[in-house]
Amino acid sequence: MRVERIAVLGAGNAGHAAAADLTLAGYDVNLFEVPELERNIEPILERGGIEIQGAAREGFARVKLATTNIKDAVRNVDLIMITVPSSYHAAFAEICAPYLEDGQIVVLNPGHTGGALEFAKKIGDLGIRRDVKIAETMTLTYVCRIVGPAKVKVFHVHKKLLFAAFPAKDTGEAHEAFRELYPNTIAAKNVMETGLTNTGAILHPAGMVMNAGWIERTKGDFLFYVDGITPSVARVAEAVDSERMKIMGAFGLRAVSFPELYFEGGYTPVRASTTFEALQSTVADRQLRAPSFLTHRYVDEYVKCGLIPMAEIGDLVGVNTPTIKALIHLSCTMNNVNYWAEGRTLERMGVPRVGISSLNDWLETGHY
Amino acid sequence: MRVERIAVLGAGNAGHAAAADLTLAGYDVNLFEVPELERNIEPILERGGIEIQGAAREGFARVKLATTNIKDAVRNVDLIMITVPSSYHAAFAEICAPYLEDGQIVVLNPGHTGGALEFAKKIGDLGIRRDVKIAETMTLTYVCRIVGPAKVKVFHVHKKLLFAAFPAKDTGEAHEAFRELYPNTIAAKNVMETGLTNTGAILHPAGMVMNAGWIERTKGDFLFYVDGITPSVARVAEAVDSERMKIMGAFGLRAVSFPELYFEGGYTPVRASTTFEALQSTVADRQLRAPSFLTHRYVDEYVKCGLIPMAEIGDLVGVNTPTIKALIHLSCTMNNVNYWAEGRTLERMGVPRVGISSLNDWLETGHY
Repeated sequence: MRVERIAVLGAGNAGHAAAADLTLAGYDVNLFEVPELERNIEPILERGGIEIQGAAREGFARVKLATTNIKDAVRNVDLIMITVPSSYHAAFAEICAPYLEDGQIVVLNPGHTGGALEFAKKIGDLGIRRDVKIAETMTLTYVCRIVGPAKVKVFHVHKKLLFAAFPAKDTGEAHEAFRELYPNTIAAKNVMETGLTNTGAILHPAGMVMNAGWIERTKGDFLFYVDGITPSVARVAEAVDSERMKIMGAFGLRAVSFPELYFEGGYTPVRASTTFEALQSTVADRQLRAPSFLTHRYVDEYVKCGLIPMAEIGDLVGVNTPTIKALIHLSCTMNNVNYWAEGRTLERMGVPRVGISSLNDWLETGHY
Repeated sequence: MRVERIAVLGAGNAGHAAAADLTLAGYDVNLFEVPELERNIEPILERGGIEIQGAAREGFARVKLATTNIKDAVRNVDLIMITVPSSYHAAFAEICAPYLEDGQIVVLNPGHTGGALEFAKKIGDLGIRRDVKIAETMTLTYVCRIVGPAKVKVFHVHKKLLFAAFPAKDTGEAHEAFRELYPNTIAAKNVMETGLTNTGAILHPAGMVMNAGWIERTKGDFLFYVDGITPSVARVAEAVDSERMKIMGAFGLRAVSFPELYFEGGYTPVRASTTFEALQSTVADRQLRAPSFLTHRYVDEYVKCGLIPMAEIGDLVGVNTPTIKALIHLSCTMNNVNYWAEGRTLERMGVPRVGISSLNDWLETGHY
């Protein structure tokens, strides 16, 4: 399938970058934002497009359409790319489900842990039966920030991005379409491989919980990755990484450690031997400041769509996740939020409580 | 029993304050330090005493003896007060056990959680059978710091300090002696009441784990209590407090919340309604800076002799302690130390694995 028309759903940092970069690449791009966040697209409507600078394509991109009308956004497009925080995937499934068309490919960029699963489950629960392929990337393509009205800066474009569909028998066709947009993506075995390669979940909750006082007292007046991830914080991130890798092992998947992922993704110029070293030598992230508040998506998103599904899947396949669970518990307590209530539990992802070989069948075919 | 001669074991901040204050109160005080830390008493030997200023007695105190010889220190004294970090209680039990004399009273000041139990267990394991009473205070009498050679500043003297012996049938006699020294102490029901009223354990591990990056990056360049205990950090401390109070409830003990304890102890001028408010209005602690490193006793001591015994006792009496366990786990991980290996487990405290009514009998009589 040849992709010509794309809908980008979500007009935050990533939506700006994707819409502009893909427009400059020659695609017709519709950019959608929910009506409640119409302010995100107003500057684009005023300027008639998006200015993009940095590590992706550069220039002024006249996106075809910027709208809060989901029906207009997804009509007749070949590929729908959802760039919202993963904690909104279920909400976006509800928003676009009625308008999906046979033959469309939906890509959650990123899916984080269990994105395609939760999306597929939600579509199914709504009774939508269309011939769509649902896929995800392991993390976001662009490290970027909106730096002015309709103006986005891309610090880095992820290299070697894992991609998979659910069920995995659809990965080939979906990937063929997606890698036209991003040649640097690689097909993973299934969404457990993409989902369990959630680098943000390794880093962000540990960094937030273990700098909670600093963030709250100074409103985040320090560099999150370079200052906040000290050797001790990095050790906790490494313990999360180790638990994550053990879960991948239980699925028979090859697990790549965080420093290696950061090198492969182009975040560090050389292979670092520890997570601390990797963060110290990071190129893309080094300018990024800490969030100014603790209920930021660095906790909210990565707990709900990273640590919680990892803990749940770990329990299912018999892998202990004490560090992951400790961080979930302290995140809930410090923010006074019950993240479990909205997190990606097995139930929400539709993961059947069956043995590992049936689970692998299910990931491949959607049945077991 | 009338106390005339006292041995203070440990010549750190608290040992300096206790030795000086009690000398000025008219007692004969021997101050002991372990040979490895002889530097702690050298300035005292040079100056012939200790200068004390602040909230306790003030003046220059000519202590009777400052020594690294334990035999000389404890010979013929009426009361032995141990002022070392509670993680060294077992070591000090070994040091002084051979020289204990019938009729002596040993007071761990503070005992933190399970101090008297661990001390008694160690003495018993060593086969020492003397008629000594072993007691503890819930927290340290003095908030103080050494501010120069043989010079200590007392910021605050704790009011309404709980005191108990193990077994509790000895509390009356031990307390009669101890309150000569400190009229502000109150007899508790048993060492579970003193031990579970460990305010430092409520505050310090939460404050350290949740400011780990800040401490490590700046070497503790902020005020620990006033800056570091932000509302979110205080919420985690409150969750620890709540778990601690539930354990006390299981023993039928009246639990007093942290803000109330801080008011009763004279740390805040008025009753605060939350832990955050209590810390913001603290008088005694407000000048105290954060530790400059993470393996500081704020983690080491309060995990080993606070959170670990609380978690163990909680499990024994059927009270969940998820916040306490999360902080223990992250402390171990960030510091790369297995605190369980040296922490006060049930085994180390000699706590029998029996039901609550037998446990209460044992706390009272030493038998069940």
